[in-house]
Amino acid sequence: MRLKDIGEIKLIERISGKIKLDASVIRGIGDDTAVIAWPDHAAVSGKPSGGKYLLYTCDMLIEDVHFTLSGATPFQIGWKAMARNLSDIAAMGGVGRYAVISLGTDSGRRVSFVDGIYEGIRAACAKFKVNVVGGDMSRSKKTVISIALIGEVERRNLVTRSGARAGDLIFVTGSFGGSIKRKHLNFTPRIREARLLVNNFKISSMIDVTDGLILDMSRVLNASRAGARIHQSLIPLSKEAVSFREALTCGEDFELLFTMAPPEARRFLKTLLVKMDTPVTLIGEVTDRKDGFTLVTDDAEEIKIDPKGYLHF
Amino acid sequence: MRLKDIGEIKLIERISGKIKLDASVIRGIGDDTAVIAWPDHAAVSGKPSGGKYLLYTCDMLIEDVHFTLSGATPFQIGWKAMARNLSDIAAMGGVGRYAVISLGTDSGRRVSFVDGIYEGIRAACAKFKVNVVGGDMSRSKKTVISIALIGEVERRNLVTRSGARAGDLIFVTGSFGGSIKRKHLNFTPRIREARLLVNNFKISSMIDVTDGLILDMSRVLNASRAGARIHQSLIPLSKEAVSFREALTCGEDFELLFTMAPPEARRFLKTLLVKMDTPVTLIGEVTDRKDGFTLVTDDAEEIKIDPKGYLHF
Repeated sequence: MRLKDIGEIKLIERISGKIKLDASVIRGIGDDTAVIAWPDHAAVSGKPSGGKYLLYTCDMLIEDVHFTLSGATPFQIGWKAMARNLSDIAAMGGVGRYAVISLGTDSGRRVSFVDGIYEGIRAACAKFKVNVVGGDMSRSKKTVISIALIGEVERRNLVTRSGARAGDLIFVTGSFGGSIKRKHLNFTPRIREARLLVNNFKISSMIDVTDGLILDMSRVLNASRAGARIHQSLIPLSKEAVSFREALTCGEDFELLFTMAPPEARRFLKTLLVKMDTPVTLIGEVTDRKDGFTLVTDDAEEIKIDPKGYLHF
Repeated sequence: MRLKDIGEIKLIERISGKIKLDASVIRGIGDDTAVIAWPDHAAVSGKPSGGKYLLYTCDMLIEDVHFTLSGATPFQIGWKAMARNLSDIAAMGGVGRYAVISLGTDSGRRVSFVDGIYEGIRAACAKFKVNVVGGDMSRSKKTVISIALIGEVERRNLVTRSGARAGDLIFVTGSFGGSIKRKHLNFTPRIREARLLVNNFKISSMIDVTDGLILDMSRVLNASRAGARIHQSLIPLSKEAVSFREALTCGEDFELLFTMAPPEARRFLKTLLVKMDTPVTLIGEVTDRKDGFTLVTDDAEEIKIDPKGYLHF
């Protein structure tokens, strides 16, 4: 069988199923980041040092797959490479701390090209207080950047994909669609918004929307063993959205999708919502798993959603 | 200016010079791995939790630069990708703990190709007790693997490149040369040897030899502000070495080079040396910086060494 026939999700399941993990790994493959109780005595005593978990993620950008040199400046490439990782850390409720960067590019390129990429990386790191502590450079015909990021989150603030419960309300930050036109290169990872949320409310589940609202929502539902009903009329479309369909499936929005139990949601709607600069919108509610995942259209039709979205293979 | 004209070392200096680090970063760019006092209170109190530092490194392998698909099996590619990172952790005196893996490959490849790479990765992880906790997959014309590895080391056991002092003796594990024929694809990272060393002796400096004995020795000397005299007659060549020159400059040996003060070295020679399965050889001594870096040939000539070796650009 070929990779293009198996799909990314099945391939990751195939790989992760064979991996053995020790007791310090709270979450391995399958959430936005790994969650680790390090140093070890933290795992044994159940009290991570300083009450914090270590978060850990990585992401690779490849020329002509994730960006083109004609369509993105070196600064934008560097910014995006770091911001994608920060978006994953945000989805766990945490902050970024330490990055290592592998960069491959053609040795015939100008030094100013690499300078520009690093300026983008440094700008994102300065804004979100991340330390660049290591790196690796190689020759490569196509430009490749792979960044690994360590973050941290207070144990009480950790949010995963698996805590959504029937009755919870579903919210999103920002708006969706048309990201490929511009936003995917200059988006602000939702660290600030995530921190406001986890510091003030009990968030039952969270994910960052990278592969489309529908696919990422279905990831939360699978992890939480739940269903959902979302409402077309409520989903905020960006000015650049091509169509409702595009906005729900094309991805690269880098917004947060999260759920809260009704009492928390009411408190949130009364208090924090008005104080956040970034719009947050209620788009639906979590249901029982047996009810599946449905979209209520503007015509009040209930459409069963087949979770499809952009997959990397 | 083009990348091929500036060279990897100058490029890294150019980038790392602009990077700001917070107080928790004990070592950033410039050693085999970063060294971090995390969680933070560890940095403030000077007492890392559990008496350990976090080590952090990354490494990227690119098809047709670091390996060819005709010259390496998928298993070997995966093994090498993980083992290179472990070799860096060994050079700090530590052990590997948590890896995240970015893999890019052509979607027309067989699933068994990716399975094979992961078997190599898992084999190295099983042998050295590393948890694979996350990953990322992308389409890519050329196969690219980037692995980031978190390790740990007891604070008292940390070894850097910068502790070599005039009078220290210089040792290496294993033998040098001809690695490109086979060893670079199936080498065993010297974690066990490094742990035996740091647990039993005061090692003043250490590095893993990836870019050739001469270049990596000169990195230790620069970091330690010292000189050295090494002896041609003492340097252990592998059976596959092409020539003495090749053995000292071609790299990919993945052996340890380390230094010890004379009393420790005497104790080492008397006790541990005979108990180690891996050969360890005395090759020379650290001198004052003003004496430079010299090679004493078999003809008793003293040759000033111009630090040259394999550079990635």
